Amino acid sequence: MTVSRALKTPALVQLGARERIAEAIKQLGYVPNQAASTLASAKSQVIGVIVPSLSNSVFVETLTGIRDSLNQHGYKFLIGESGYSPERESQLISTYLAHAPDGFLLSGIEQQDTLREQLATNNVPAVRMFDLGTSCDDVTVGFSHEEAGYSIARHLIERGYRQPGFLGAQLDPRMMKRRHGFRRALSEAGLNPGVEVLTPAASTVELGTQMLGQILQQAPDCDAVFCCNDDLALGVLFECQRRGLSVPSQMAIAGFNDLPWSAFANPGITTIVTPRYQIGFTAAQLLIKILRREPIDNPNINLGFRLAIRHST
Amino acid sequence: MTVSRALKTPALVQLGARERIAEAIKQLGYVPNQAASTLASAKSQVIGVIVPSLSNSVFVETLTGIRDSLNQHGYKFLIGESGYSPERESQLISTYLAHAPDGFLLSGIEQQDTLREQLATNNVPAVRMFDLGTSCDDVTVGFSHEEAGYSIARHLIERGYRQPGFLGAQLDPRMMKRRHGFRRALSEAGLNPGVEVLTPAASTVELGTQMLGQILQQAPDCDAVFCCNDDLALGVLFECQRRGLSVPSQMAIAGFNDLPWSAFANPGITTIVTPRYQIGFTAAQLLIKILRREPIDNPNINLGFRLAIRHST
Repeated sequence: MTVSRALKTPALVQLGARERIAEAIKQLGYVPNQAASTLASAKSQVIGVIVPSLSNSVFVETLTGIRDSLNQHGYKFLIGESGYSPERESQLISTYLAHAPDGFLLSGIEQQDTLREQLATNNVPAVRMFDLGTSCDDVTVGFSHEEAGYSIARHLIERGYRQPGFLGAQLDPRMMKRRHGFRRALSEAGLNPGVEVLTPAASTVELGTQMLGQILQQAPDCDAVFCCNDDLALGVLFECQRRGLSVPSQMAIAGFNDLPWSAFANPGITTIVTPRYQIGFTAAQLLIKILRREPIDNPNINLGFRLAIRHST
Repeated sequence: MTVSRALKTPALVQLGARERIAEAIKQLGYVPNQAASTLASAKSQVIGVIVPSLSNSVFVETLTGIRDSLNQHGYKFLIGESGYSPERESQLISTYLAHAPDGFLLSGIEQQDTLREQLATNNVPAVRMFDLGTSCDDVTVGFSHEEAGYSIARHLIERGYRQPGFLGAQLDPRMMKRRHGFRRALSEAGLNPGVEVLTPAASTVELGTQMLGQILQQAPDCDAVFCCNDDLALGVLFECQRRGLSVPSQMAIAGFNDLPWSAFANPGITTIVTPRYQIGFTAAQLLIKILRREPIDNPNINLGFRLAIRHST
């Protein structure tokens, strides 16, 4: 009991005893066993985090925000990758529940009902990231993807482009909301909202090079594209260079997420700057508040987005 | 005991009992508590993985290889990010030891002596990734960074470039080995190996745009650059476009890692293709062999690299 106290509340243990314990620990290479301490306290100090993809740098920045927030409060986290699959997400959550996590940070608001039941039954709170919930049943931290798509379309219309098209990969619910906002603005302006190429494949630079050819085949008068992610936009830019299409006079390019190259490309790529780090940080702070049973003013936090206008439009 | 048996070895439990247990589990939302099971078996089925950076997609692919390998064998893993700091790596390992991991997958071979002692004292095996050890004390999976740098320089020399320069960021030990090989080839060919820009900053596209200006200021006759990572190379390419420098006739660009855009850039970027996924997969397989006390033929596995020659050189 003295050793345990020396490790957890050293101020309550006499200096001499503490020093002898520290020496013994050093000699033995002893490390407090978290498994025992979890059982004893029924609290694991572990948060389960599930993001759609680890190879997408968007989510890596969110994880950095989560880490910085949880580190402040002594929590650790387990990271899972759902591959944008609700089924895989549910499986991961079941696996993680075996580690008795204190809570979850999840991506998106479209979780299956069985998953919601599972979390409720186990009495484990969850904060949902990247999108905004509409009821007080959910706790969410994100922004409106519909408005983001709308604001890109408005910008292209104001710059005088007459036939903007949409390039969409992955087809996840948040991308579909961006598409919806984009089409709504075109319709409102009396423009054709139907020029688009959609694919369930993951967005990559290579895919962007292919999609430019596909949309031009479908609509040779297409003079601007909104890419659902900046890696598509980079592929479109290189393909425009290869085809001798001048950007932005013959083809405007807009992206989404402000990935690290977008500001430094030639020309710089117009994009939506998303608060990825801040989403992770804020969601983790909110979860800790819930775990401490502190009051929450607003369960749906809108962190907004910013349209960064560059020379590609 | 019957419940435990029904969960772990269902074939040993009668069908009727198994069905009643399954129904009770469903109603209760029960999840087997890993903490209890860790204590009971003294094995956590958890591997600690520490990589230098999570925001570098290089390591994300390695983590994917690790995941695929460990999933096959029912292991989970905790991911840590050392930020290229040996001190931070040691701290993370101490933290992870509290979860009684079965083993570690670490990055690089330059770990501190205190870390080696800590692992030895706790009797936890480690496999080191990305570089090659020279003794049988270490188990490593990687390739020779010195040879990779050498082969890039040889390629540039054979193409007729007379003043290749080196752009190095991060200054981690593996980058310094690539630099060493690059300089050795230049010296052997009677060329000046001293044209270089080095910075401890992390490699980014933005940094690449700046470093091109710096190396041209230092050596206006520089006609080729070897960038220690492909994100630098992408920044150099955009900066060449902005300055009206023709690639590859006025400036050749070579990178390292074959990041997703390199093959699709305009022109495609010559680079070293590194077996990142395979390093993670093989290292995890090797660690599992060690944990099972199976014999290991070769503790230092060289997976090699490939020079991908594209139009940028």
